[in-house]
Amino acid sequence: MAATRASGTTTVRYGTMHDNVLSLSVVLSDGRYIETGNQAPKSSAGYDLTSLFVGSEGTLGLITQLTLRLHPQPEAISAGIVAFDDMNSAVLAVIQTIQLGLPMARIEFVDAATAAAFNAYAKADMAEVPHLLFELHGSESNVADSAEMFNDICTDHGGQGFQWSSKTEERTSLWAMRHKAYYAVLASRPGSTAVITDICVPISKLGQAVAETRDDISQSSIQGPIFGHVGDGNFHAILLIDPDNEKEKAEAMRIGDKMATRALSFGGTCSGEHGVGMGKLKFMEAQHSAGWDVMGQIKRQLDPLNILNPGKLVRQN
Amino acid sequence: MAATRASGTTTVRYGTMHDNVLSLSVVLSDGRYIETGNQAPKSSAGYDLTSLFVGSEGTLGLITQLTLRLHPQPEAISAGIVAFDDMNSAVLAVIQTIQLGLPMARIEFVDAATAAAFNAYAKADMAEVPHLLFELHGSESNVADSAEMFNDICTDHGGQGFQWSSKTEERTSLWAMRHKAYYAVLASRPGSTAVITDICVPISKLGQAVAETRDDISQSSIQGPIFGHVGDGNFHAILLIDPDNEKEKAEAMRIGDKMATRALSFGGTCSGEHGVGMGKLKFMEAQHSAGWDVMGQIKRQLDPLNILNPGKLVRQN
Repeated sequence: MAATRASGTTTVRYGTMHDNVLSLSVVLSDGRYIETGNQAPKSSAGYDLTSLFVGSEGTLGLITQLTLRLHPQPEAISAGIVAFDDMNSAVLAVIQTIQLGLPMARIEFVDAATAAAFNAYAKADMAEVPHLLFELHGSESNVADSAEMFNDICTDHGGQGFQWSSKTEERTSLWAMRHKAYYAVLASRPGSTAVITDICVPISKLGQAVAETRDDISQSSIQGPIFGHVGDGNFHAILLIDPDNEKEKAEAMRIGDKMATRALSFGGTCSGEHGVGMGKLKFMEAQHSAGWDVMGQIKRQLDPLNILNPGKLVRQN
Repeated sequence: MAATRASGTTTVRYGTMHDNVLSLSVVLSDGRYIETGNQAPKSSAGYDLTSLFVGSEGTLGLITQLTLRLHPQPEAISAGIVAFDDMNSAVLAVIQTIQLGLPMARIEFVDAATAAAFNAYAKADMAEVPHLLFELHGSESNVADSAEMFNDICTDHGGQGFQWSSKTEERTSLWAMRHKAYYAVLASRPGSTAVITDICVPISKLGQAVAETRDDISQSSIQGPIFGHVGDGNFHAILLIDPDNEKEKAEAMRIGDKMATRALSFGGTCSGEHGVGMGKLKFMEAQHSAGWDVMGQIKRQLDPLNILNPGKLVRQN
């Protein structure tokens, strides 16, 4: 099916799982075997079964093989980092960047708590404020141009300490905070485990969603750094709990539920990248209304005996 | 659902309908109303109903509203044209361009017959050989860099007469041939109508697929220029027939069927952009095997009385 490939263009876009899966081999609940696509970059022949199975969490079939998009190796990669006093300024800089069509390959953010955890973990010396991390792909001159233009935009929104580099070692070092964020956060409270949850909201609401989540966590008895994918309105909270403390676990669940409810009230989704499983079943009807019943109909049609990952994703009758 | 938006990136990619539809409002056969997505740029909460309904040709529900992606207006747009002695050289140039990750916004091709029809139609003076037409989006310096790089690649593959421009009037004039191709082709045989069909193949097979289609048409009693979207392996044949001549109609159908059969044998699809409807039903089982039965199951589940565009796309029992 491969409906995710661009039409008449070779512009690279890294995307969600849906963008990067070209076709699947799937074994259905009754033993039938299907292949959902072929080698054509696009197709309009029939329903898009690839997209139906991607993200179905094993409830419609067992994926036994998948074909992924390959992305060309860019001539040059530059990466950088920039600090902001507050998340909202960072989000405004990103919105302007998107509106200008600047071809960013990645824009990630980490909050002040994540920067603090990274300082403690890696003996680094980062400003303990929100940061944006970004990566640009293209020719040497393209990435230099784009980095300078992004610097200008960030400066207009109060960005400070803008650094970028095309050198591999320096890029790796600039990304280290993001790549080690999860481990740094876990290490900030020895013995803890994390309840990790994510939501995705319209990017215009991202600053507000992060700020309100930040407030919820601050007012709770637990800690929870926030980081995510600012380019698409998606963020994760890493809620640190003592695994033996039921009160903390309940607190984390309460904060996570509030994030999901807020996402829906902002016109967003209860899960941006993570599974629904059982934990977010309770939000599915509010998010999808009758669309959730349609998902249930498809599930029952393709798995009438409910043997494929039962109890997950669709309405449990 | 909007699973088509990029993750953590603002790189623009123009794409298929699937890439550009963010969410749908749909009325189902039993009168239920669903909305398949929301304003979140991405979601992993549930099956991707947006992609299921896009391209379902009205067989699963009536789409009453849709939300499309907006693409930012690029700072600069450059467009150009380049001639080749044969299609295969043009395809090789495009493959190398894709492999280098050069961010082309569009790459289209027209064959020699289309160039000839355009000359006659618009009193133009184009070389009557295959041409590539392309468009680049970005900053002024980005598009200039990329155009020069593309020029180099085309020259390596025998491209001639490379022209490009960022000026609106000149761009419009460079694209005129492509935009008027259909009318120019129709006008090349007054009183004719066209049987238009398309296939999509792996781009590595595109040169061969076009050449063999070209041979089929040359050996037939009718004319049929070919043009298409070389960036994604998709092309159209415009088979010109006298609408009152049953023999010509049968000849066009035979050529179209052969194109579809060839597409399948090359690992491609019987339809890249056009509908399946009734005309290509006969290829669906060969292309999808048991996957076509799954499409039928979904159809029967969502439209048990078969009142939505009956007779199309799925197996007719």
